[in-house]
Amino acid sequence: MFLNVAVDTAGGDLGPPAVILGIEYFLKKSSSTNIHFLLFGDQEEIKPLLNDAILLKKHCTVIHAEKKIASDAKVSDVLRQASETSLGMAIDSVAQKKAHVVVSSGNTGVFMALSKIRLKTFQGIDRPAIPCFLPTLKGQTLMMDLGANIECTPKMLLQFALMGTVYSSIFLKKEKPSVALLNIGVEHSKGVSLLQEAAILLKENKHIDYKGFIEGNDILKGDVDIVITDGFTGNISLKSIEGTSAFIYKIFYQYLSKSWRGRLGYLIAKPVLKKVFSILEQRSYNGAPFLGLQGLAVKSHGHSDAIGFANAIKVAIELSIVNLPQLVEEKLLESI
Amino acid sequence: MFLNVAVDTAGGDLGPPAVILGIEYFLKKSSSTNIHFLLFGDQEEIKPLLNDAILLKKHCTVIHAEKKIASDAKVSDVLRQASETSLGMAIDSVAQKKAHVVVSSGNTGVFMALSKIRLKTFQGIDRPAIPCFLPTLKGQTLMMDLGANIECTPKMLLQFALMGTVYSSIFLKKEKPSVALLNIGVEHSKGVSLLQEAAILLKENKHIDYKGFIEGNDILKGDVDIVITDGFTGNISLKSIEGTSAFIYKIFYQYLSKSWRGRLGYLIAKPVLKKVFSILEQRSYNGAPFLGLQGLAVKSHGHSDAIGFANAIKVAIELSIVNLPQLVEEKLLESI
Repeated sequence: MFLNVAVDTAGGDLGPPAVILGIEYFLKKSSSTNIHFLLFGDQEEIKPLLNDAILLKKHCTVIHAEKKIASDAKVSDVLRQASETSLGMAIDSVAQKKAHVVVSSGNTGVFMALSKIRLKTFQGIDRPAIPCFLPTLKGQTLMMDLGANIECTPKMLLQFALMGTVYSSIFLKKEKPSVALLNIGVEHSKGVSLLQEAAILLKENKHIDYKGFIEGNDILKGDVDIVITDGFTGNISLKSIEGTSAFIYKIFYQYLSKSWRGRLGYLIAKPVLKKVFSILEQRSYNGAPFLGLQGLAVKSHGHSDAIGFANAIKVAIELSIVNLPQLVEEKLLESI
Repeated sequence: MFLNVAVDTAGGDLGPPAVILGIEYFLKKSSSTNIHFLLFGDQEEIKPLLNDAILLKKHCTVIHAEKKIASDAKVSDVLRQASETSLGMAIDSVAQKKAHVVVSSGNTGVFMALSKIRLKTFQGIDRPAIPCFLPTLKGQTLMMDLGANIECTPKMLLQFALMGTVYSSIFLKKEKPSVALLNIGVEHSKGVSLLQEAAILLKENKHIDYKGFIEGNDILKGDVDIVITDGFTGNISLKSIEGTSAFIYKIFYQYLSKSWRGRLGYLIAKPVLKKVFSILEQRSYNGAPFLGLQGLAVKSHGHSDAIGFANAIKVAIELSIVNLPQLVEEKLLESI
């Protein structure tokens, strides 16, 4: 299978260098040669970078974009000019079937809004959502939405639960994965009324194995397969998890390096410790699709570096190969 | 100084045994003998437990309460009967100056509402909030609200920032601690409009050193002294942090115990590792006051075990000794 991957090189805090190096890093690790990259962005910026990206240089086309979308741009302000921006052009290439997938580390809100307009959502789905698999004590748990929709109605949370069930059944191979709603307590009276209404919708839906509310400290226990939340709360929760992991990693090394006991113990246990920290390594979880779209769009973390971006490319290619939108559509048709 | 500490023994998931054992544990560690505990709850349940709590037995009075408040009770449903419940009676003892402080692991919403009614907030403060000091790479950061107010107006967030500034200046001895608002991005356009309005209020207030928005992954970096958020988001964030810490602790030991390298490395580095994990030990952070009240009320985690409850008692006594409400009032008068 030959794949065209559209990349918005202008998105992300680290700009084109992280994107270009990231793709090169991916190509070095990958055995596949039948992938072609469409690099959207400022050609004056991209071309010199390709001199240090020998593999990518052989497998890419640079498509000049006059404009780029700022990380703090508001959706309403950029819609009109979108088709001249690197992100808009990259999304359009998927809409026009010139590319199988689009990848960007850019402004989440704008990426989501443009993807929704150009690639369309499936029938029965109002808005796409961002899922993420988290490592847990029992395997992996899917959490969504992670930032695409900062305010959600109970109906949207129901749709996320349906999409999460489909996505999870595809990737975790579970027939009917269990679902919980993220809340500040497990009792039915807890939280905002919107969550209580959503709980009723999830409970009544026969395609969802609804288990009730879940609290933030229980997500990584892995007792439920899917944690559903609005994009604001999900984003805060995910980033709190990432920040804690990074914090522990740092104080761990700080303390171990301070004494001979620490240094010696570390040397001996190094292979084991490396394994533990690779589980927590947030960069290896970078890259998530906008679930619910008829086309494939993969969001990479705004802060992601080259290694993180390489992982987003990997996710984009894996999802293209299985044709995620088609799989989701088939499964959704059964349950909506 | 002689202190009377009112305790709601019925609150918390583990009930009276965790509470009684927790106080006993505190007394064993403490050198102070001039503390008297008023134990509110079912005397038939409490009295047998005191047989295993020799120190507490000498320093307590059991006050029978006919009723207790369920963990899933709604505020509106229990207000009328509150004065017959262990929690309501314990709070009343502070209102009537019979106790210096009340401690409970019970229903946060009810505890907050009753405390507000009986103990009153300071002038200029609409609702009390729960603060918590978190360990960071640079020391400690105060986060609030952690669950007392699930929906907040921009004005409430401003009041939290003022109270946080006061609380932080008392405990971290910083003249003007820096403040940030928890959000899903740092750009001014990010998040819900309520946060953007709050940002303007915080920026305009000369008593607050406002630094802008902060994301979940940056909280534990310690770059700002105070992180302000509504109680829903704060609760989710704090519990996500706690859950991650517990998760890492578990997989860490799981992996280390699986191989001889892991076991040997652990044995050698044990004193260092113990220190790292004691920083992360959530039980040692249990116990937080409702900030903004004219009387002292300390909330203990609903899940807290005896060791966690012992720490809440320790916090309650420390805050009583410094007379937190008076300190807060003096400082607030300067800034409202």
